[in-house]
Amino acid sequence: MFDHVDHIAIAVEDIDRSIALYVTTFGQAPSHRERVEDFKVEIATVNIGETAIEFIQPTSGDSPIRKFLDERGQGIHHIAFRVDDICAALKELEAKGAEVIDKSPRKGKDGSLVAFIHPRSTERVLYELVQVKG
Amino acid sequence: MFDHVDHIAIAVEDIDRSIALYVTTFGQAPSHRERVEDFKVEIATVNIGETAIEFIQPTSGDSPIRKFLDERGQGIHHIAFRVDDICAALKELEAKGAEVIDKSPRKGKDGSLVAFIHPRSTERVLYELVQVKG
Repeated sequence: MFDHVDHIAIAVEDIDRSIALYVTTFGQAPSHRERVEDFKVEIATVNIGETAIEFIQPTSGDSPIRKFLDERGQGIHHIAFRVDDICAALKELEAKGAEVIDKSPRKGKDGSLVAFIHPRSTERVLYELVQVKG
Repeated sequence: MFDHVDHIAIAVEDIDRSIALYVTTFGQAPSHRERVEDFKVEIATVNIGETAIEFIQPTSGDSPIRKFLDERGQGIHHIAFRVDDICAALKELEAKGAEVIDKSPRKGKDGSLVAFIHPRSTERVLYELVQVKG
């Protein structure tokens, strides 16, 4: 069902500091940066092979990432799998017992469509599905 | 420096339950299972593209994974990057200011060599380097 790990998202307080540290320590510069208004976040991605490390910083006090940071501090937030057809994947996952947060896909970064699966049904790991712009 | 994301490790209480859920919900079966005595864990990996999801269950009360589970519950434990030459990568990372937990590589699963970077120096994310058996 999944093609590959599209990205691993890390919730951070200061995206510029995270990028600077990543560039200095790992020698990897971000390839993409964007505010995603639907999720009230700013994101920056660093590619490692076919997967991106995605830093996410909240842009508003009521961003879900703000809540995550207040409760748990900085750290890994979710794992995203790349799919060809997100609507078909959501239907299949629901049929197999996964608790889908987004019944219909939402707009993600760079024209992608995304949907989240509730960690209650996946051993406390938050998963996202991503279909890139065709 | 990094070739790709080798695996994403998830600390779990019951590896059989996690595998069963993964097989049922995501339709993905594990490709490898092993006890890694040096880390007092049992692991099982499920391949998604070039990356594996790695479940880790402690096999002893003094396993570092037991401590993680007691403090934080089930969840994502670390991100591992594949490298060609782990000793060269460790030297380079130390020179760039990363706090290396393992100054010399340790034995990981399936004949690999592994070393961890302290989350203090990487914005609270635990990273591992992996060099596979040549």
